[in-house]
Amino acid sequence: MVTFSPINTSILNNLSQIVGQDNISTSDSERQLHSRDQSFHEAHLPDVVVWANTAQEVADILALANSHHVPVTAWGAGSSLEGNPLPVHGGILLDMSKMDSIVAIHADDFQVTVQAGKPRKDLNRVLAKYGLFFPPDPGANATIGGMLANNAAGIRTVKYGASKDNILKMQVALADGRLIEVGSRSVKQSAGYNLLQLFVGSEGTLGIITEATLKLAPIPQFRTTMIATFATVEAAIEAVVAIRGSGIDVAALEFLDTIAVTMLIRSGVEIEPNHTLFMEVHTAHESSMQADIDLVSEICKEFDCISFLPIQDYTEQGKLWEARHGSYETIVRLNPDKQFQVMDVAVPISAYPEIIDFGKQLLDEHNIQAALIGHASDGNIHFTLPYSNKDELAIIKHINSLVIAKALELGGTATGEHGVGIGKKAYMSDEHGEAVDVMRMLKQTLDPNGILNPSKVIPD
Amino acid sequence: MVTFSPINTSILNNLSQIVGQDNISTSDSERQLHSRDQSFHEAHLPDVVVWANTAQEVADILALANSHHVPVTAWGAGSSLEGNPLPVHGGILLDMSKMDSIVAIHADDFQVTVQAGKPRKDLNRVLAKYGLFFPPDPGANATIGGMLANNAAGIRTVKYGASKDNILKMQVALADGRLIEVGSRSVKQSAGYNLLQLFVGSEGTLGIITEATLKLAPIPQFRTTMIATFATVEAAIEAVVAIRGSGIDVAALEFLDTIAVTMLIRSGVEIEPNHTLFMEVHTAHESSMQADIDLVSEICKEFDCISFLPIQDYTEQGKLWEARHGSYETIVRLNPDKQFQVMDVAVPISAYPEIIDFGKQLLDEHNIQAALIGHASDGNIHFTLPYSNKDELAIIKHINSLVIAKALELGGTATGEHGVGIGKKAYMSDEHGEAVDVMRMLKQTLDPNGILNPSKVIPD
Repeated sequence: MVTFSPINTSILNNLSQIVGQDNISTSDSERQLHSRDQSFHEAHLPDVVVWANTAQEVADILALANSHHVPVTAWGAGSSLEGNPLPVHGGILLDMSKMDSIVAIHADDFQVTVQAGKPRKDLNRVLAKYGLFFPPDPGANATIGGMLANNAAGIRTVKYGASKDNILKMQVALADGRLIEVGSRSVKQSAGYNLLQLFVGSEGTLGIITEATLKLAPIPQFRTTMIATFATVEAAIEAVVAIRGSGIDVAALEFLDTIAVTMLIRSGVEIEPNHTLFMEVHTAHESSMQADIDLVSEICKEFDCISFLPIQDYTEQGKLWEARHGSYETIVRLNPDKQFQVMDVAVPISAYPEIIDFGKQLLDEHNIQAALIGHASDGNIHFTLPYSNKDELAIIKHINSLVIAKALELGGTATGEHGVGIGKKAYMSDEHGEAVDVMRMLKQTLDPNGILNPSKVIPD
Repeated sequence: MVTFSPINTSILNNLSQIVGQDNISTSDSERQLHSRDQSFHEAHLPDVVVWANTAQEVADILALANSHHVPVTAWGAGSSLEGNPLPVHGGILLDMSKMDSIVAIHADDFQVTVQAGKPRKDLNRVLAKYGLFFPPDPGANATIGGMLANNAAGIRTVKYGASKDNILKMQVALADGRLIEVGSRSVKQSAGYNLLQLFVGSEGTLGIITEATLKLAPIPQFRTTMIATFATVEAAIEAVVAIRGSGIDVAALEFLDTIAVTMLIRSGVEIEPNHTLFMEVHTAHESSMQADIDLVSEICKEFDCISFLPIQDYTEQGKLWEARHGSYETIVRLNPDKQFQVMDVAVPISAYPEIIDFGKQLLDEHNIQAALIGHASDGNIHFTLPYSNKDELAIIKHINSLVIAKALELGGTATGEHGVGIGKKAYMSDEHGEAVDVMRMLKQTLDPNGILNPSKVIPD
């Protein structure tokens, strides 16, 4: 068991020397602002909040913390859902939000280099002028560093991949204060171990990402949203599997059940109260767009859709996707007496109907009304599990664990895109078996004092 | 410096117990067959060749070798180009070619699980019945395990990615004899460290891949090959950059200069003796195919192409790609008095004209006639450097090192797809800086006795 040293005045003075006294705070308000993410996980107060402005400052903070055995937890936008950036052992909360510069735009290479604290929506606003965008879209205005550290995904992963698929090169600060470069601006590289992907998804437990060169995509020439509604969950999900199997290059294929859709309607969105697929296709030619729409429509009709509506107008599209993105917040807002735990299992697409059926049966047995929202194209489903007291929490935790066990049995994962954080540690051994020992060895090698985001990812 | 123990009778007996006496050989012929790959690198004889039939046998061999400090070098098809599978310290040559079973075909999930020794062409023949294929295409009939261990790429990487992008899950035998599973059949996973990508591209130095679940693509509905020829290298390369920038989803975009094309003509291929782009587009609709062809044609004409020919006939297409694939062998065959070293630098696409210009000038200065063959879409170029004696070898090695230094300066890599092996070790520190120390730490952690493919990847 790793033990940590308390923060003392000398360490605070050293931190202040590194970042300047305006970039360090021990105030209650700042500590509280950095004590919880958007999840149900218990708050943990850091001892001190530090804002870094440069990669060298990050490295210097780590060298200092490492020599004093003080924990360091990196913080992007605080939008994670599994307690990933919570400073469970106190220590230094390293806020990266001031490192938000665009370092270089390589428009001809479809690449951009940014500091890790850049929020993705802000970045995409700038990139739009170049006709480019960074595709991973988890909904929240997460920072690029946070997205990479958690391998965030969201809608559009089916076409463009998760964060891990849209990164070429990073600068990373190691626990001992070294700054290294991993990856290459060359899209092809077979030059030794893939350190890039070792740090992606490591949730700040192996190193802290300070800068990233991202792979960008051209903003599609033609974009159509399609809404199809179904009488049963089964029909909608069967349509999903058929659309995926057809080879159509969909850019998004999202499922919302009637409970989720009803919430959206109550918040003012004009759609029908049925099980619904939200879809999007991106193409370079108008003719292939129509062909894609025709094929999707045909498949939806084959599975007895109640309605099928292609939407070409970009403003209308924007409103619908805004509603889809805000669906979790809408559910929370409309149920002020409830708290929610969001499940994040994912399975091979052929097992998608089975995992949904399994989860729904469990919920029915316990008489729980939970909205189902899923990145259906990737076999990823979020059951939004409500509770209002300890007993109900115990029940939904139990349901969560049963659904996760089923997902693993079906060849899937306990966590499709939310990372491990605190919430999924308990399932790591079930999912990975002895490979967890290898993860533990890598952690020990790269962070021998265990200062980086301690008590995350690796089970104790 | 790691020291190894010699193979003795007791170890041979133990090996024989693991794999059976039919699967072990110390004969000169077998040792020689496994002493060199397709590169110019010096031959190294193993002490014993062992054929494994199961993952457990691989694990048992490693446990045995580890306890006796005997090197183990895995061997797929022996088609690598940087000495990657050469047993430089002798010991056990572990031939994986008998592990060639298809374990499971998950057609609905576009996935297949195979043993690591399966040759890719054999696999694709089976998958064709399901309308699917494994896209990475290095030309040679490499084994899946070898492709993954080297992160092989080849043509079509621009659309489908390298081997690393087409793998979901692997079984890996560790140096200590443990068998672990890494990755998931779920296409989305954010559950801890990405061990999958740590073993991909590690060239058998961190573990030996025994089984792999691959991501497959549907065989495209429509496929067109296009041949465009140009008067100058510059015009051809500028067309490449423009085609990449246009957002057209090309499936292959290959460049061959006049020297390379002339060799193909001498071997019987009917094309014009000019600088040439070989291109391919894959689409789901006929209409978008025509739109793609029109756009590529327009761009090629903008850069004053001499000719532009779309080829729809699949037999004709096959012949041309066969010729492109065989170009290196053709060059070797037509120059029996020469040996060749193949360069493998890759740069961001915007720097492609500059790296080619730089290399060509150097070759001109030394009056060397070298064919240029490149996966142009990925910024990857192979200068095929001829030599017939030690002095000429010294010159081309010097040229190679200058071009690599230039590629690194331009944000590129010393090795786009051939791996590090023996040939690129000297450039690892220039390319990665201090990150090489991290690679060394990982090697030490996962293979403390240094038995796995020793003296590869990591510089001494």
